[in-house]
Amino acid sequence: MNYEMTIVQFSKMLKNLSNILDKGAAFADSKKIEMDVLLNSRLAPDQFNLIRQVQIACDTAKLAAARLTGKEAPAHDDNEKTLPELKTRIEKVITFLQTFTPKDFETNLNDIRVTQPRWEGKYVTGTEYLIQHAVPNIGFHVTTAYAILRHNGVEVGKKDYLGEMPFKK
Amino acid sequence: MNYEMTIVQFSKMLKNLSNILDKGAAFADSKKIEMDVLLNSRLAPDQFNLIRQVQIACDTAKLAAARLTGKEAPAHDDNEKTLPELKTRIEKVITFLQTFTPKDFETNLNDIRVTQPRWEGKYVTGTEYLIQHAVPNIGFHVTTAYAILRHNGVEVGKKDYLGEMPFKK
Repeated sequence: MNYEMTIVQFSKMLKNLSNILDKGAAFADSKKIEMDVLLNSRLAPDQFNLIRQVQIACDTAKLAAARLTGKEAPAHDDNEKTLPELKTRIEKVITFLQTFTPKDFETNLNDIRVTQPRWEGKYVTGTEYLIQHAVPNIGFHVTTAYAILRHNGVEVGKKDYLGEMPFKK
Repeated sequence: MNYEMTIVQFSKMLKNLSNILDKGAAFADSKKIEMDVLLNSRLAPDQFNLIRQVQIACDTAKLAAARLTGKEAPAHDDNEKTLPELKTRIEKVITFLQTFTPKDFETNLNDIRVTQPRWEGKYVTGTEYLIQHAVPNIGFHVTTAYAILRHNGVEVGKKDYLGEMPFKK
């Protein structure tokens, strides 16, 4: 279940995000707008722009996978400026996620301590980190990226965010 | 874990949402704006307004708890127009969630089939529903509610969305 929640679902959310960015690019193209305008948009002057929202969504997935399994996450420099560069960043994280297997998640997450630099030595358990931080955080940044594009007129809907459901009949 | 992901975490997210709405009310008050203006705001003309975002966040929590445990969810009429009414709606759902215990989640969610009217008879497993629908969906609507207020100038930050972390030293 932890493998499905992180590796499988985070990969899906990042793929959906990549598709949403493509819809933004098609919109920019049809309106003769530079994609740069959308990539640097935000909903409030002191909010991170679209580029940064995508970077943080990527980092949330990468760091959750690493921290919950004791593996090392690859470093990424946050220097993306264009859509192809952002899509490559997303691809790199999905490729990293694909190196995990359910076996990597065999440790009980209650027995894992997770911290990060800004927490100044404090920690939460792996379960708390997964449920109360990583999962809501990736949802937050993917939704915010979506909302920035939606606000600018890009025709995206919740289905683009949720992606395909594995329906059975 | 399923109990923590749904009952505990969804309650937390709804409480955070209620606090975010309070920040919106304080902002409206300080700016001499009717709260009504914020409650009816949206980021795009064809997007649901803030009231509807809150209602759907509430329904996502309520229906996930009910569908994953075979219980009946209380009906709510979607007739809220004011902040106190919306906060009451949130409170009702949290009260409903509090009627659940970990024992209600003892069935393996892979053995449960979940459907909803708009899926026209198709279904997904309980696990798929939880991970690929309910969890990202509540994140989507709480973040969108947050983003509508953020865009209107309300000083909310990601901490308001994530809420308190159960830090240990």
